[in-house]
Amino acid sequence: MQLPQFSDVQAAAGRLRGRAHRTPVLRSATADARTGASLFFKCENFQRMGAFKFRGAFNAIVQLSPAQRRAGVITFSSGNHAQAIALAARELGVRATIVMPADAPAAKLEATRAYGGEIVAYDRFAEDREALTRRLATERGLALIPPYDHADVIAGQGTTALELFEEAGPLDALFVCLGGGGLLSGCALAAAALAPACALYGVEPEAGDDGRQSLRAGRIVTIAVPKTIADGAMTTHLGELTFPIIRRHVGDILAVSDDALIAAMRFFAERMKMVVEPTGCLAAAGAFAMAPQWRGRRVGVIVSGGNVDLAAYARWLAPGADA
Amino acid sequence: MQLPQFSDVQAAAGRLRGRAHRTPVLRSATADARTGASLFFKCENFQRMGAFKFRGAFNAIVQLSPAQRRAGVITFSSGNHAQAIALAARELGVRATIVMPADAPAAKLEATRAYGGEIVAYDRFAEDREALTRRLATERGLALIPPYDHADVIAGQGTTALELFEEAGPLDALFVCLGGGGLLSGCALAAAALAPACALYGVEPEAGDDGRQSLRAGRIVTIAVPKTIADGAMTTHLGELTFPIIRRHVGDILAVSDDALIAAMRFFAERMKMVVEPTGCLAAAGAFAMAPQWRGRRVGVIVSGGNVDLAAYARWLAPGADA
Repeated sequence: MQLPQFSDVQAAAGRLRGRAHRTPVLRSATADARTGASLFFKCENFQRMGAFKFRGAFNAIVQLSPAQRRAGVITFSSGNHAQAIALAARELGVRATIVMPADAPAAKLEATRAYGGEIVAYDRFAEDREALTRRLATERGLALIPPYDHADVIAGQGTTALELFEEAGPLDALFVCLGGGGLLSGCALAAAALAPACALYGVEPEAGDDGRQSLRAGRIVTIAVPKTIADGAMTTHLGELTFPIIRRHVGDILAVSDDALIAAMRFFAERMKMVVEPTGCLAAAGAFAMAPQWRGRRVGVIVSGGNVDLAAYARWLAPGADA
Repeated sequence: MQLPQFSDVQAAAGRLRGRAHRTPVLRSATADARTGASLFFKCENFQRMGAFKFRGAFNAIVQLSPAQRRAGVITFSSGNHAQAIALAARELGVRATIVMPADAPAAKLEATRAYGGEIVAYDRFAEDREALTRRLATERGLALIPPYDHADVIAGQGTTALELFEEAGPLDALFVCLGGGGLLSGCALAAAALAPACALYGVEPEAGDDGRQSLRAGRIVTIAVPKTIADGAMTTHLGELTFPIIRRHVGDILAVSDDALIAAMRFFAERMKMVVEPTGCLAAAGAFAMAPQWRGRRVGVIVSGGNVDLAAYARWLAPGADA
């Protein structure tokens, strides 16, 4: 398997021009005052379909051969990648089949259907989604575009950091959420090329710290499906492509509690007027936790998505809410 | 009294450069699909202190004489203008006294204090806030900067539409929330100069439709303090400066229900990932209601602010919520 390179991220940026939003980089005087750092929030919650995932999905599907496009694509996803594949496929006139956990947030199931994706539901705690998806791909002759362990997906996600560095200039540290590692490894390629001195952190939920364990062990550690409100980071292991890139470029991997995610979510709503989903709060929660170390420095934070079920979101914002 | 002119809006834009945020203009494929129009949302909820009010407050205080700056400023406000005066005054090294209703949202009272403003509380339903403020201004020798009926305030607010036209290009219609008319009259000056063919709409809460009544009657109609969730539009009358400008340039004034505001608030959270306060939803609710008339056209919507008490916001987002 060939690892993606920074040149692939640059090529992806060209393909995404005019197709993905160039999302704003927002500042917050309150966040700066609280942390003592200068924080730059790259707001992928304002991306098309509400998360960075559109970047990788589009970059992968647009490179399929005409025959593959006619046959259609398939993927498995806990949510945002599903919507991303459905939307990117629709835009490119390609049929999309999505293998989704039956307990995914209602908003994500509905949105995936609304974007024209055909959903195949499975039990997140009983069935092996990757095996199921591979079987369907073979039976139906569909191109499989997995949520993170795919060179074109990784390169697409990396355009997030590429844009952040273009807009914010040099950064001393960059915090990125970590599930399967697609966004983190893509951003690592961009950071290594554009800002080699920038310290790079992955941030994952405490309940699912397989990334941290893997980095310490020097090999991919697989865990049980973690129970966390960060439904986009309920992954059990890093990928064969994402792990070597992360191992090479990422300084450390932090784990944060669901309560820290809720605190960050409330901060985003109250002070920055943004709706951010739990997974999208991972990087900020990590940056807030590490703030003393980065006092006086320029710190990037990737706000990865905003697709949250409104009822759950209302509960998290209500006074006294915890996980 | 001299009415402000478009040249005053242009001068205000120069004074605000680097001091106020140039807020993003966001699009929504969902909003476009639902309305059949091309909507351009000018997002002043991302403005400093969370609302457009910073523009007018800064533009007024920065023009005070050295003696006035030394003496300090005073204002009355149901919320966002209070924070705006407190923040702009602090930045310019001026002391600010704010006459605020005792029942203003806790978040707004706290934020005003946090920005360094000294709060004098009054009973919104019993006391005449303007008389009280004028008395304090005289006793203490403070410069009074009212929330809307002030040429420099109006000119400052008008920079919102100025930026929107610069970024979005020509618009066929523009929807602006209406309380006392500072934002609407300022935006009217910009629209009349930059886009004379653009139809301009003010949108106020149904419970407080004094603007609509005034436009129909051809004189300023005063009503009782309206009860509405749009706490920034609980005004009882237009101003001596704002009314003649509105009368001259505004095509119509619409009134929308609190339930329509909640529906718009949920739309902003769910689809655009933005926290918008009830008053900030007025223009969007008006645009959604008028959508059939503007099918296929380019429509601007000013999202005026995002300062909402998190507990109330959570209740409005929860399933089955109504006003």
